[in-house]
Amino acid sequence: MSLVESPRRERGTRQRRRERSERSSLAGPAYLTRRIPTYALLQEEELQRIEAAADRILAEIGMDIRGDAEALELFRRAGAQIEGERIRFEPGLVQELCRSAPRQFRQHARNPTRSVEIGGEHIVLAPAYGSPFVHDREAGRRYGTLGDFENFVKLAYLSPELHHSGGTVCEPVDVAVNKRHLDMVYAHLRWSDKALMGSVTAPERAEDSIAMCRIVFGDAFVDANCVILGNINVNSPLVYDQTMTRSLRAYAAANQAAVVVPFILGGAMGPVTTAGAIAQAHAETLVGVALTQLQRKGAPVIYGNFLSSMALRSGAPTFGTPEPALGSLVVGQLARRAGLPLRCSGAFTSSKIPDGQAMLESAVSMQAAILCGANFILHSAGWLEGGLAMGYEKFVMDADLCGALQVYVQGLPIGDEDLALDAFREVGPGNHFFGCAHTMRHYESAFWDSAIADNNSFEQWRDAGGKAADERAHARWQAMLASYQPPPIDPGIDEALRDFVAKRKAADADRWY
Amino acid sequence: MSLVESPRRERGTRQRRRERSERSSLAGPAYLTRRIPTYALLQEEELQRIEAAADRILAEIGMDIRGDAEALELFRRAGAQIEGERIRFEPGLVQELCRSAPRQFRQHARNPTRSVEIGGEHIVLAPAYGSPFVHDREAGRRYGTLGDFENFVKLAYLSPELHHSGGTVCEPVDVAVNKRHLDMVYAHLRWSDKALMGSVTAPERAEDSIAMCRIVFGDAFVDANCVILGNINVNSPLVYDQTMTRSLRAYAAANQAAVVVPFILGGAMGPVTTAGAIAQAHAETLVGVALTQLQRKGAPVIYGNFLSSMALRSGAPTFGTPEPALGSLVVGQLARRAGLPLRCSGAFTSSKIPDGQAMLESAVSMQAAILCGANFILHSAGWLEGGLAMGYEKFVMDADLCGALQVYVQGLPIGDEDLALDAFREVGPGNHFFGCAHTMRHYESAFWDSAIADNNSFEQWRDAGGKAADERAHARWQAMLASYQPPPIDPGIDEALRDFVAKRKAADADRWY
Repeated sequence: MSLVESPRRERGTRQRRRERSERSSLAGPAYLTRRIPTYALLQEEELQRIEAAADRILAEIGMDIRGDAEALELFRRAGAQIEGERIRFEPGLVQELCRSAPRQFRQHARNPTRSVEIGGEHIVLAPAYGSPFVHDREAGRRYGTLGDFENFVKLAYLSPELHHSGGTVCEPVDVAVNKRHLDMVYAHLRWSDKALMGSVTAPERAEDSIAMCRIVFGDAFVDANCVILGNINVNSPLVYDQTMTRSLRAYAAANQAAVVVPFILGGAMGPVTTAGAIAQAHAETLVGVALTQLQRKGAPVIYGNFLSSMALRSGAPTFGTPEPALGSLVVGQLARRAGLPLRCSGAFTSSKIPDGQAMLESAVSMQAAILCGANFILHSAGWLEGGLAMGYEKFVMDADLCGALQVYVQGLPIGDEDLALDAFREVGPGNHFFGCAHTMRHYESAFWDSAIADNNSFEQWRDAGGKAADERAHARWQAMLASYQPPPIDPGIDEALRDFVAKRKAADADRWY
Repeated sequence: MSLVESPRRERGTRQRRRERSERSSLAGPAYLTRRIPTYALLQEEELQRIEAAADRILAEIGMDIRGDAEALELFRRAGAQIEGERIRFEPGLVQELCRSAPRQFRQHARNPTRSVEIGGEHIVLAPAYGSPFVHDREAGRRYGTLGDFENFVKLAYLSPELHHSGGTVCEPVDVAVNKRHLDMVYAHLRWSDKALMGSVTAPERAEDSIAMCRIVFGDAFVDANCVILGNINVNSPLVYDQTMTRSLRAYAAANQAAVVVPFILGGAMGPVTTAGAIAQAHAETLVGVALTQLQRKGAPVIYGNFLSSMALRSGAPTFGTPEPALGSLVVGQLARRAGLPLRCSGAFTSSKIPDGQAMLESAVSMQAAILCGANFILHSAGWLEGGLAMGYEKFVMDADLCGALQVYVQGLPIGDEDLALDAFREVGPGNHFFGCAHTMRHYESAFWDSAIADNNSFEQWRDAGGKAADERAHARWQAMLASYQPPPIDPGIDEALRDFVAKRKAADADRWY
């Protein structure tokens, strides 16, 4: 169920109002459909130069696939040149192997009205992923726990601006490394009904994640439909390690979608020049996508990317800066040319707290993801400190930006009612539009309404405590959690899930890593 | 002197490095030249619908020009229909009258290396304008004084990210209303050497502003060249009052550039639907532009716009929201079709302090101005509280975003050196790029370097006091002001300016408003 399904020009304000009111309810739109064009930063010839550079990287330098003989064998049989663990491709071969991947697919949520469409003109916004720490303005920064993890699953469930439950919304460090994935997948399946991501930290954990989805959706359904994503990071530069290729193959074999993501900090895992980092990322991503297709032809897969820059004085990673924003715009063009759904990163920042730096950087980064045509935007809410911390206030502040962007991607309707000639006739020069018929027809739905911004007068704001945005955000996430009601679940399925988790934990009771 | 003058593909990293090092000096680039495409939100047919709506507003409803018989007479002679103070135009007439306005012009600064090119692919960033209050995090919010005004002139002078000294950077409320303009124009001319804006609050104050420029530049030069801008607000909806038309005509008669700016808060001074507000703004702007051309054919003029939205629960104006951002994108398309240089607004927010709300809203608004192809972006730095306050910390935080956008508009070079194949050959799979030859050649210039962002580790940041962005910004503007050295000025010119100010104040000594 898309937010906007009718062709652009037919959309009236009444429909917008209905959509707004849906948006403010828990239901919300399942995902977004863009009605604005993507931004074409580079021209055809420039894009071809990048693609040619990626071809030369794959043909001349090659990549390593380490510790996964089966993956090498799949590539060997497909025509790649294998030399030890180094793999090289003649120009065009990788692209040919990627061709069977679907341009668009549906990821099913356990609540069917929450299922998301990934690819094409659709946009799915998901929370941040992978932080060992959490942060809020009262308790400060500390290691994340399973309690925090569950809180963020609940907050994403309660946020109509987010369409996906995400994956490792924070690391529950109070649970053993080799058992965490069970609690995480259970939390997503039990405390939300939105679509989710599974574990990739070991192939057997990927298998566990998929097995838990089979309990919920049934074996046959899972074999025929995508119900879980796995986020596969390339060991940039130009290496896939066996944890990643085996997890990737586990998802693909089960007809589930790997998100193939080179993680390139320019100057460290790739060249300092953005064009070179993009060429590298393109080469790396296509190899991972090809492997999914060799594992199972037609398996869904997402073309991912993660570019960041570096503070030149310290070597520290930086986020929300102009170079990765430009990079995202190009990556969007490349993914569309490759005919693959695109994952970009959202509300990036290196700030430790949700201050002006954090929201400025996040806005720059999110806008690039929206303009470049990303279909799945991970890290859309919560990201702090270069991904080391998941912020409670940051989460709801970012979700608010997601709400603004939801309106933005709808574009501007230019119908007669929008052009409002009758309003000008009624009001005339020098008068105001407050009470005119046109305003009365539209004022409830005319403008996006932020849940965080304070638009009051200075005096009203001061008398209400003179609070900064993150103070208001603090109250908001606490109220949201206080209002949380779990979505219904079949008791038999819940029990089966709990059994699965208990048995898998018991079978591995002595190991902690 | 543009930041980037060579054609896009020929730009190498060496040139970028040189540009960066210029940028970090006081000199900086005089203005920017965009190497990225503008963003085409609407299609031809949609734009024609808006233009047709503007035509109908002008033909059927008309506009009022109040208290300025000369302006009405100019329009009457040009073929407009006059009925009392109401003026109507047959479709196409206003556009015809605008045709003599230049597509691009140079505004000269008293330091010729600071002169700016307005129009075409060029971008000039100017400080915020018009706030009665100022704010900083220690002294809080209070009325602006001439001392504050001078401080902001100095900060803009010291900010290589800003290319223009602006106009009423804050209201010096400690100076009588009818004498303020003299001190303001003197401050711009004396404490900066960047281009400036003059008074528009009365036609004689506009004349004074221009007269002071004649002292600096000479009568003949001023008659032949643009040296000052005047920001003319339409009394939206559909009214020009005599203060504005007479000031506009004063600038145009002197061959100086009016910036014609409808100020439309949707639902109040225009319809709540953005398309209608844009059609209205287009009609209003073209009438003002046409008046400049009737006053003096070929006079420089800027197509301005100022769209804002409204908080539906309170009626308060909102800023940095998605609807005006979309609106800016359309206005950019309309201005280009009209062949006129475009003014947009920059770092808008309704926040009272430079917090997460402020910087998020400012980033959304600034990005829209950049993407839409704006040539002159007023309010690029300092804006708080819907324009009621000029913030010291906000000023330097916004200037930092301007620096990021300066890199952004350069786009991505895709030369061989940028694609870095030699770096991949040298480094190979699994190694890092820190010390490779390509990195060493480029690391000094590879990435934009924020003056405000903290990219350090949590521990480093905490041990340095755990400061929010606005705390760092506080230290920065104070250090900037402490380092300020006035630009040189011919003592005879300075004396003549001071004499002019003293005489004009003495002549009007008994009036205070």
